[in-house]
Amino acid sequence: MDHGMTEQLNVQQMAEKLLAADNVLILCHKNPDGDTIGCGSALYYALSALDKTAAVLCSDTIPGRYAFTNPRLYKGEFEPEIVVAVDVASVQLFGENNGMPQFSRHVDLCIDHHAGNSGYAEYTLLDGHAAAAAELLYDVICAMGVDLTAHMANCLYTGLSTDTGCFKFSSTTARTHIIAAKLMEAGARVEELNTLLFDTKPRERMEAERIARNHLEYHLDGRCALIYLTRDEIEQSKVDPADLEELTGLPISIEGVKVGLTLRQQPGGSYRISVRTAKGVDACEIAKRLGGGGHTRAAGCELLGNLDNTKSAILAEVEAVLDAPQEGA
Amino acid sequence: MDHGMTEQLNVQQMAEKLLAADNVLILCHKNPDGDTIGCGSALYYALSALDKTAAVLCSDTIPGRYAFTNPRLYKGEFEPEIVVAVDVASVQLFGENNGMPQFSRHVDLCIDHHAGNSGYAEYTLLDGHAAAAAELLYDVICAMGVDLTAHMANCLYTGLSTDTGCFKFSSTTARTHIIAAKLMEAGARVEELNTLLFDTKPRERMEAERIARNHLEYHLDGRCALIYLTRDEIEQSKVDPADLEELTGLPISIEGVKVGLTLRQQPGGSYRISVRTAKGVDACEIAKRLGGGGHTRAAGCELLGNLDNTKSAILAEVEAVLDAPQEGA
Repeated sequence: MDHGMTEQLNVQQMAEKLLAADNVLILCHKNPDGDTIGCGSALYYALSALDKTAAVLCSDTIPGRYAFTNPRLYKGEFEPEIVVAVDVASVQLFGENNGMPQFSRHVDLCIDHHAGNSGYAEYTLLDGHAAAAAELLYDVICAMGVDLTAHMANCLYTGLSTDTGCFKFSSTTARTHIIAAKLMEAGARVEELNTLLFDTKPRERMEAERIARNHLEYHLDGRCALIYLTRDEIEQSKVDPADLEELTGLPISIEGVKVGLTLRQQPGGSYRISVRTAKGVDACEIAKRLGGGGHTRAAGCELLGNLDNTKSAILAEVEAVLDAPQEGA
Repeated sequence: MDHGMTEQLNVQQMAEKLLAADNVLILCHKNPDGDTIGCGSALYYALSALDKTAAVLCSDTIPGRYAFTNPRLYKGEFEPEIVVAVDVASVQLFGENNGMPQFSRHVDLCIDHHAGNSGYAEYTLLDGHAAAAAELLYDVICAMGVDLTAHMANCLYTGLSTDTGCFKFSSTTARTHIIAAKLMEAGARVEELNTLLFDTKPRERMEAERIARNHLEYHLDGRCALIYLTRDEIEQSKVDPADLEELTGLPISIEGVKVGLTLRQQPGGSYRISVRTAKGVDACEIAKRLGGGGHTRAAGCELLGNLDNTKSAILAEVEAVLDAPQEGA
């Protein structure tokens, strides 16, 4: 993996770089998730505890469910000595909606867990085996000698739990659980956080899911399950399209299903197809046949066409891949 | 809490009692869940590793999703020197379907995490703060000097994760996470286990959920959400009624909902009502007003009547409790 011209740091070195600066600007990625916001906030409070000036900058508004992390948001009130990015794999992910693109042009430090990190920062702490950037930041905060407060623990737990589907995804390691234990010992209120992060869904999301479930279809002798939402249905339900991501896990969760398909009609009329597969079936191979791509178990593509011919096209490729001689995918 | 005439043991003492016996019968509770089966199987393999004769006895068939735990099932082929119950809070929970009721009449040892354990066994290792009996059994197996195999770790992880909703429920502690880490280090295959235990649902379960979601109703200015399934619907969907338990978490997961109600018509025609509440609302108080009971956040009752008057009756009590002056429940 090419990591550009960046110099790799270990935890201690990263802590020292941060300790050396008095004014720190923290950058999160666009469409912020629990890991980037949780890390941004935890680092903000850790630096503040060291009497440093710090603030967080993100291209997009922080979603309501992460509002409790409550970092100071950067409004240009100080000149950063150091710019540090958390959970941002490449410069494209900074986004362009904050009106301050200058800061993402030269990033001093990066703390990240994406194996494909492009190496855009001058110094990078990277561990592609960490389930969340919050795992790495936990180490950095400890190495800076900061006493972890309950609030910092809440922020880091948010990163850890959202990036692992509450310890369910395959990225979860023994270390993830050990850090979760440390965060609970530091006072993280995990009951409330889990309710907020995993068990609170808007009515609109429920309505969209109801419609999608009514469209559930089985194909190829039950080896493939498919749900879909047309543009009209998405709009009538008033669901935030970001809230539909999670639905893509639904068809593959059915017993006996090897390929789960979720079709969502886009504003322009095309269908975005999310492909999820059981172990041994390559989702990326299916998506690539229609010009898409992705990972082994989760991939996607987008097709112009109406619902019927979109379904036919993707089902034909699913069948071809399912019926191909296996090479131990 | 009255724990009967039992003598409480610590982990080391429990390990010694088990080490002293050569023929051990392990009892699980009826309607077996992941914790009782996971513990029964882990203990069976641990005792076998010590060259002891052991087997598991349960009133009911082991559900398919736990079949991989694969313990030796007791068929009367040896005379147990010691009978040990795992995750069984009272004698009523042994059940009566195995044709060997004599063994639950005198239980030597009990390893359990239910605070209300009735103390039926001669010696008990009880920790009401443990999230699962598997937490305690992990300690006991280590204290017996057994090297934890990957299979034992899989069995214990099954207990830990199913009893905590994969580390989401409020019973989860720092210790739960620490033990999960140890089990992963011992080789537990958590990716496959999580898929099997949490992300694989029978088609019939999907169909029943589809119907229930189509019945979703909001009441009391959105503070109460209700779903229901009539007997006909349950039967037509062919769902295993045990698979419907999980649905009771659905209405309370909607934003703004303080009381979530799930009504399931029973074979006799009555409606079983599951009450789930947000923090600060006492589910048990609602259920008690209609002759039911339960816990602060999860309770239930059963009403004779048709769907309409059942709904009216429960909604009236929900309203009374929601509108009562709060005493910081």
